[in-house]
Amino acid sequence: MQRRLMLQAAAGGTVLAAPAIVRAQQPQVRWRLASSWPKNLDTIYAAAEVVAKKVSAATNGNFEISVHGPGELVPALQVADAVQQGTVECAHTASVFFFGKDPTFALDGQVPFGMTSRQMTSWMYAGGGLPLLREFYRDYNIVNFPCGNTGTQMGGWFRKEIKSLADMKGLKFRIGGFGGVVLQRMGVVPQSIPAGDIYTALEKNTIDAAEFIGPYDDEKLGMHKIAKFYHYPSYWDPCGQITMYVNAKAFEALPKDYQQIFALACSEAHIDMQAKYDTLNPNALRRLVGGGAIVKPFPREVGVAAWKEANDLFAELSAKNATWRKIFDSFIKYRDDQVLWSRFAEGSFDSMMLSMKSVDRK
Amino acid sequence: MQRRLMLQAAAGGTVLAAPAIVRAQQPQVRWRLASSWPKNLDTIYAAAEVVAKKVSAATNGNFEISVHGPGELVPALQVADAVQQGTVECAHTASVFFFGKDPTFALDGQVPFGMTSRQMTSWMYAGGGLPLLREFYRDYNIVNFPCGNTGTQMGGWFRKEIKSLADMKGLKFRIGGFGGVVLQRMGVVPQSIPAGDIYTALEKNTIDAAEFIGPYDDEKLGMHKIAKFYHYPSYWDPCGQITMYVNAKAFEALPKDYQQIFALACSEAHIDMQAKYDTLNPNALRRLVGGGAIVKPFPREVGVAAWKEANDLFAELSAKNATWRKIFDSFIKYRDDQVLWSRFAEGSFDSMMLSMKSVDRK
Repeated sequence: MQRRLMLQAAAGGTVLAAPAIVRAQQPQVRWRLASSWPKNLDTIYAAAEVVAKKVSAATNGNFEISVHGPGELVPALQVADAVQQGTVECAHTASVFFFGKDPTFALDGQVPFGMTSRQMTSWMYAGGGLPLLREFYRDYNIVNFPCGNTGTQMGGWFRKEIKSLADMKGLKFRIGGFGGVVLQRMGVVPQSIPAGDIYTALEKNTIDAAEFIGPYDDEKLGMHKIAKFYHYPSYWDPCGQITMYVNAKAFEALPKDYQQIFALACSEAHIDMQAKYDTLNPNALRRLVGGGAIVKPFPREVGVAAWKEANDLFAELSAKNATWRKIFDSFIKYRDDQVLWSRFAEGSFDSMMLSMKSVDRK
Repeated sequence: MQRRLMLQAAAGGTVLAAPAIVRAQQPQVRWRLASSWPKNLDTIYAAAEVVAKKVSAATNGNFEISVHGPGELVPALQVADAVQQGTVECAHTASVFFFGKDPTFALDGQVPFGMTSRQMTSWMYAGGGLPLLREFYRDYNIVNFPCGNTGTQMGGWFRKEIKSLADMKGLKFRIGGFGGVVLQRMGVVPQSIPAGDIYTALEKNTIDAAEFIGPYDDEKLGMHKIAKFYHYPSYWDPCGQITMYVNAKAFEALPKDYQQIFALACSEAHIDMQAKYDTLNPNALRRLVGGGAIVKPFPREVGVAAWKEANDLFAELSAKNATWRKIFDSFIKYRDDQVLWSRFAEGSFDSMMLSMKSVDRK
């Protein structure tokens, strides 16, 4: 329309005006986003919509991103390939899904005994994590942006209470991602089952236990009705960082201001998802307990065994995968520094708060 | 506009060029920002520069914000008045500075035994905090944006070790903000001294102790050379949220896309500051210990006494200030929910990590 207008104007003798209009017109961009998340996981799915909404508002509707659920454009677990090949411009996913391609992907999401949400965010934004991962993703034709986090997850739902490490042996446990590798080394039998099928698998005794995310999301699957022991924490998912993948050529083709706006919108969604989970989880946990869930910590020996296996696995990966080693070295040094520092201000304050909750503040 | 333009074009007149340029040209906006922070507090000062840089990049340099240190345009503690009156369009400050106007300001920054950094951010973004505070600031002609956090602060530097609550009585303690009110009720004698004068005041025995922020900032003041006992945590500053104030009329006058871009840039700076503090504090703490600092927790009875006084103060404020009460009720319920929930996934994982640090992971 604008172009036609200019031609009309030129025909009318105002040639001068045309270049001015061309320069100032904001470019029209339309992108398609493939999400790995079903819409009923509303908190995690919403982050892509937050990005689309903010980008649109910040460009007066000139840069629009349409958000598509799994299967609409590409299946949930093929979004990395789709972005790499340019089938879609971008995708919202968990990098840990792709650790089969290279375990390094997990360092962009979560690894057992890795970083918690705030630690991970700080490593990404100021601790060198983002530049290292950008370099890693270059080989995949992807530009990555942190775009959400679930916080530390719960350990899972068990039909029988876990009272010792021995109770974990031989357990058919639905678990996704990298954590399953560690648990397998502990004698657990990891099962790969889509979220929608977990309830039935528990009901039919196909599996003994299942982990998913945390109270707000777990509640929707109804697992507490069958497997009432809700053990915590998830040593294998100390956080769940979610990532926006953008096709590198599509990103480079954007005007510089749109690149900046897109990056800012991802940061906004990054904060927003964690904030929503923090807000929704406490009441979901209350409802689960009201519905019969028995919330119990794992026995310490389960954590200690997982710690040993995780560290052995990390050492093996570092010995044979230089890409992993380079990024892991930065990741784990940062984690160690944060654990050290948390001992003082943040951690000691948190401990005090936990102990004071028994004192009436009224 | 578009329709009129087309009609003019159709008419073939030369009138049409001017409106087309006016419509499409991105508006030029120039704002001045008054920071309450000296430039040598580089982490906290930088947030305003991050906002300015991101806003410029996202608008192709059409919306520029010049950042000014304290005294350049207005003194550090008069920035709220300056924004309210429209002397400057915006300011980067700590709301707790203004609790003398109304204690409610402190709920936008930090209160003793209040929320930690992540909790505060989640309350602001998803827990109802931001809408409540926006309503509060309306009377001051201010639109507020979360724009940084220091994390939980350290308790302060003391010339003599605090071994009991009795050691706090009569102590001349340099402390800013709301925490001083609580400490005064415990028998401490709070002192108001600018950061630049703390070292001399300690050296000349004018004060017995001083608190500031955390390792990275405290190191610059050199307090550890005179008052070597570094007690933790700051029960009075469980976080230090920093805020961007914008004059309401100036904000309303912005085009909608610039409003969105400004808000996104504040969120980016909000993440960025906490990430920088998390990254810089561990090594700063190491250097301080290397320089003679003795890092010790406060005796538990100091925390318990502060807890009691803080809660009594909150009850008094709630009884006489309806504005405080409305926002505090939301604030404290959110805190309680977060403390409850942290007991499970996040907190139990953190505890495990602290205990496992003694186990060699190699």
